[in-house]
Amino acid sequence: MTTTEPAGLPVAEPVEAHGDHGHAVHGYHDQKAEHLKRLRRIEGQIRGLQRMVDEDVYCIDILTQVSASTKALQSFALQLLEEHLRHCVADAAVKGGDEIDAKVEEATKAIARMMRT
Amino acid sequence: MTTTEPAGLPVAEPVEAHGDHGHAVHGYHDQKAEHLKRLRRIEGQIRGLQRMVDEDVYCIDILTQVSASTKALQSFALQLLEEHLRHCVADAAVKGGDEIDAKVEEATKAIARMMRT
Amino acid sequence: MTTTEPAGLPVAEPVEAHGDHGHAVHGYHDQKAEHLKRLRRIEGQIRGLQRMVDEDVYCIDILTQVSASTKALQSFALQLLEEHLRHCVADAAVKGGDEIDAKVEEATKAIARMMRT
Amino acid sequence: MTTTEPAGLPVAEPVEAHGDHGHAVHGYHDQKAEHLKRLRRIEGQIRGLQRMVDEDVYCIDILTQVSASTKALQSFALQLLEEHLRHCVADAAVKGGDEIDAKVEEATKAIARMMRT
Repeated sequence: MTTTEPAGLPVAEPVEAHGDHGHAVHGYHDQKAEHLKRLRRIEGQIRGLQRMVDEDVYCIDILTQVSASTKALQSFALQLLEEHLRHCVADAAVKGGDEIDAKVEEATKAIARMMRT
Repeated sequence: MTTTEPAGLPVAEPVEAHGDHGHAVHGYHDQKAEHLKRLRRIEGQIRGLQRMVDEDVYCIDILTQVSASTKALQSFALQLLEEHLRHCVADAAVKGGDEIDAKVEEATKAIARMMRT
Repeated sequence: MTTTEPAGLPVAEPVEAHGDHGHAVHGYHDQKAEHLKRLRRIEGQIRGLQRMVDEDVYCIDILTQVSASTKALQSFALQLLEEHLRHCVADAAVKGGDEIDAKVEEATKAIARMMRT
Repeated sequence: MTTTEPAGLPVAEPVEAHGDHGHAVHGYHDQKAEHLKRLRRIEGQIRGLQRMVDEDVYCIDILTQVSASTKALQSFALQLLEEHLRHCVADAAVKGGDEIDAKVEEATKAIARMMRT
């Protein structure tokens, strides 16, 4: 699946915003609705964890839910990263000059942070 | 949850509850207030992520915040696991019999799930 | 190491060695042959990586092989950890006293290091 | 550090090979000597692990060494990935067409595999 259309979600962005990757409109812009939906689901998982702790649920069952939340966060990060590579990094490559080096170094550092958690 | 005990200090559980690791009182019982505080902070981080996406913050800055949230979740999981080993697993060892094998296998599987995310 | 015992089967250690978890005989003692077999397989994977780099294999294919080696190392670590919990940590719990706290803290720190890589 | 010169290591590649990212000469080509050095060091760590198991070293000390080896593998993977993004992915962006989408998807899947181990 390499299309940049949001998965199963209509977005309200006007078509003319596409292709503008300036300061305020980043690679993930078109998937905004999908990203917010994912994050609200994760927020619900974290509230679920609070209920579990409050109701003295068995430790191992809480750990299973923590793993699910962590996985959901990593999956969100990967989607964001994919859009970043496709838009911001690819744009820097097309522009030419030194910017591509800085962008790739920055992206690699972000990936390193994601791997270390 | 209305308790105001500071994290890491003894909480006002009656002494007779200690040592009872039955259905409703698990290893993490005494740290309940601290756990809930941590989870509410993580919930705040997730809401912060929603604001960042909504305000079109730069992708890499969002990824940095995702890594911080994942790290906080992992740190919560590690504390829960430590308490589980100290109470549930150690209790099973003291009791003797086959239960220790089941408890250790269960804990190892939970650790494997945490490592894979 | 010349033993040929199949992995996971009882090895020819004298019975009197069992239960002695002193300096030289740790929890993983009985699985020694299996552990060495796993580690030699991982060593072979690392040599395979050197061949791949030397033969200019495509970066992504090398990354796939790195992930396989990392997974094999993590899986080895998890088995070692399971045996450590079952033997060293459980023994400390049975002995009573403060040792269990130290053992659990030490194991949790090792798990934290494994999760951060 | 964004220069593509190998860190502290003279490489024997003729200068005219630079810029040729065809089938047999990938992004990591210039760092070949450095990569092989890293991998040989990791191979040495794995052999060190075999010695530790053979000499019945304490489980936790073995786990610490496993974490160091995993970290070294991840660090090697990150360097390879950075070079891949800088060369193969950036080249696809410059070429234009659909290839950039395929390259970014492929790289993201490799990163996902690295994160899950």
